[in-house]
Amino acid sequence: MSSSTSNFFAATLAAAVALVVSSQAGAQSAPLSAQESDPNVMGWMQGFPPPADKIITQPDSVYFSFPRLRWSVCHLREFLPTEEISRGLSAPVPLTYPSASEFAELRAEIDAVTFMPQNSDAEMTWEQSLYANYTDGMLILHKGEVVYERYFGCLEEDGKHAIMSMTKSFTGLMAEIMVVEGLLDDTALVRDIIPEIGDSAFATATVRQVMDMTTGVQYSEDYSDPNADIWLYSNAASPLPKPEGYVGPNGYWEYLQQVMPEGNHGDAFHYKTINSDMLGWIISRVSGQSVTDVVSDRLWRRMGVEQDAYQTVDAKGVPFAGGGITAGLRDLGRLGQLMLNEGELNGQRLFPTEVVAKISAGGDRSKFGDGFPTFGAGSYTSQWWVLHNAHGAYAARGVHGQTIYVDPTAEMVLVRLSSFPKAQIGFIDPTSLPAYQAVAEHLMATRP
Amino acid sequence: MSSSTSNFFAATLAAAVALVVSSQAGAQSAPLSAQESDPNVMGWMQGFPPPADKIITQPDSVYFSFPRLRWSVCHLREFLPTEEISRGLSAPVPLTYPSASEFAELRAEIDAVTFMPQNSDAEMTWEQSLYANYTDGMLILHKGEVVYERYFGCLEEDGKHAIMSMTKSFTGLMAEIMVVEGLLDDTALVRDIIPEIGDSAFATATVRQVMDMTTGVQYSEDYSDPNADIWLYSNAASPLPKPEGYVGPNGYWEYLQQVMPEGNHGDAFHYKTINSDMLGWIISRVSGQSVTDVVSDRLWRRMGVEQDAYQTVDAKGVPFAGGGITAGLRDLGRLGQLMLNEGELNGQRLFPTEVVAKISAGGDRSKFGDGFPTFGAGSYTSQWWVLHNAHGAYAARGVHGQTIYVDPTAEMVLVRLSSFPKAQIGFIDPTSLPAYQAVAEHLMATRP
Repeated sequence: MSSSTSNFFAATLAAAVALVVSSQAGAQSAPLSAQESDPNVMGWMQGFPPPADKIITQPDSVYFSFPRLRWSVCHLREFLPTEEISRGLSAPVPLTYPSASEFAELRAEIDAVTFMPQNSDAEMTWEQSLYANYTDGMLILHKGEVVYERYFGCLEEDGKHAIMSMTKSFTGLMAEIMVVEGLLDDTALVRDIIPEIGDSAFATATVRQVMDMTTGVQYSEDYSDPNADIWLYSNAASPLPKPEGYVGPNGYWEYLQQVMPEGNHGDAFHYKTINSDMLGWIISRVSGQSVTDVVSDRLWRRMGVEQDAYQTVDAKGVPFAGGGITAGLRDLGRLGQLMLNEGELNGQRLFPTEVVAKISAGGDRSKFGDGFPTFGAGSYTSQWWVLHNAHGAYAARGVHGQTIYVDPTAEMVLVRLSSFPKAQIGFIDPTSLPAYQAVAEHLMATRP
Repeated sequence: MSSSTSNFFAATLAAAVALVVSSQAGAQSAPLSAQESDPNVMGWMQGFPPPADKIITQPDSVYFSFPRLRWSVCHLREFLPTEEISRGLSAPVPLTYPSASEFAELRAEIDAVTFMPQNSDAEMTWEQSLYANYTDGMLILHKGEVVYERYFGCLEEDGKHAIMSMTKSFTGLMAEIMVVEGLLDDTALVRDIIPEIGDSAFATATVRQVMDMTTGVQYSEDYSDPNADIWLYSNAASPLPKPEGYVGPNGYWEYLQQVMPEGNHGDAFHYKTINSDMLGWIISRVSGQSVTDVVSDRLWRRMGVEQDAYQTVDAKGVPFAGGGITAGLRDLGRLGQLMLNEGELNGQRLFPTEVVAKISAGGDRSKFGDGFPTFGAGSYTSQWWVLHNAHGAYAARGVHGQTIYVDPTAEMVLVRLSSFPKAQIGFIDPTSLPAYQAVAEHLMATRP
């Protein structure tokens, strides 16, 4: 395992650079399969106490390395300080299900759907793709009704799962709502909103450039260099007391104050998590609330969710706006449905239609570059990934394969929670994106 | 401040020894009043970021020292790893309230109730006692109906508060349920249930002695001695990575394996938190579940609670059975009502009546000793405090003044969450216990 996948912070902070799978896969020994690495099969944390070799404990180089991470993605709060994203005190609004017999039939049909993975000439079934991608939970809503729901590994219907970089899409959605409502000026410079950003490269970026990750900021990810930015950020982010003699920044926001420039703002999309944390700071400064409270007030208390969510924090209590959220599968489905409905859920309008219209329209494709070949010629805007495919699909994406995938043409919302061994989404897309498209087409054909 | 009040673990682990208030109070400078130390007045953690002198951060000698602790008691999960006590996914069952006008009238009446504090010749009103005790939340149920509910300081109706040693009563209740249901033999020796307890002094104690804290185990609390057991336990308990060169026990259970004897098992009540963690281990070994899951399955998923609760854990994920729970005020009221109803709530029986009968009958008063003069000639059984007063009252109690107080004669349940500056319950009882009795008598007289 490279160190990139054995540290919770670094894994989320990483660019998840897509690699050409064919040239890389052969060079590495195959990890345990999804079935072999199932936490229940591995026996992690079973017994009181568990056997010494089955205890998962600090530091994150242990608890967040494969195969242990397959247990830890459902238990992040047991390792890290966290802040609640409260659902409030009201009753959940249940999701809509077909009859039990129809539901079973739908599942069998969907499991049998076939598709052709990228760079492959061997057909795969939907069900095979779940295991290929180390799926922990899969939920599909079609026309507002649950048509598929399965749990694997560490996840159960009343459990929660780390969504990692999908967190960025929460942060971006909050910012876009504030922009559309006139609370946040996306043409403003960061330094005009946060003067103490000082000489940081972020100072002269616009809010929109931060939202779309087109800032020109230096952020190196050379894991072999102990002074690479990713390690400095990871150290700054850790909520644990700093080691004796530590002189670096303490917390996300101190880190952001010392970011160096690289290239020009606005030139190109560069997937760098520090933008999301910069955006979190902007949201908090403008709203006067932590991002956890903003998400609670704007979404979680109004969506009829079943479970509180939570978000990891740094040593100063600042939530990790670029990757810290853990939530339940169905509640993420509710968020996807809210997006599909362009801001309405359970008969209530939560934000203007324009918010989703702007996100789903996508960003400037000419700036997207070729860093994510498995994703295709898409774009990234307001911290959402836009496919620019025939169905107009867009997605929130996490580095171990997590997603909320919204397909407006098929009226389909799909949520996957997963714990793929590598923090490299380029290995995950080839058996994911074609599968989502195939299921969308299947649902359109069979439930017109 | 003594170190006893500036460390979360040590504060809970302390015996909360009652001191003769009159001889001690004068020797210390008065702390900030409840109003002066209100976290909203102090301005803790306000702003993004807060001013440097208003940030509350690690370690616990900072975040859990007065007046900061008045903020931190509502935010423990933001400093420590925790495990959820899940309420499940169903709708909460609302508490019963009188009409708004009647509710306002009841509050005014109760606020004006007067009583005579212990060791005092100056009458105090109920409302004054709330401030005298740094109350953060007060809920009173009479005949199953909420007659009084107020929030102060860091707490709001949808917030949660550390209950510290009230956690012991959760642990004790779970054990008593298992005893009554025949799952746990309280005459068994600890070593017969947990062979790896080895040569620990606990080995030869009975489960009942552990439940009633009449074990003969050494546990020194000399705060000036860095090798005192309370510091060793506190270090073992910390979920943070151990310092370089650390050679002591890691986690609650390793600590328990090396406890030395002191006196004889069964001779006398000694309030020592290590008994509660020993009991937690016994519960988990016998049930095959963590104490969080036991409480979730037996109580939290079945009581119609509004909020998940949570419990701090050690570095191996073992919940702190002696002090780690944080919960909402109303949900603690539901637990009190469940006790008053002898195991029934919302028309459902959750455990046999015998459970409450055994707890409310109390333990062996001859063993109680004189360590808690402000509590009176009571007893401690199954980790509950029994007053043996005319009303047959019994209570769960936390070291900063938290309580669930059940008065069967008055059909009253009272829950207080609070953050008294000192971790010394002997300062808190004199303006608490007489106040509870006065309100009970008031309710009996006015709502017969």
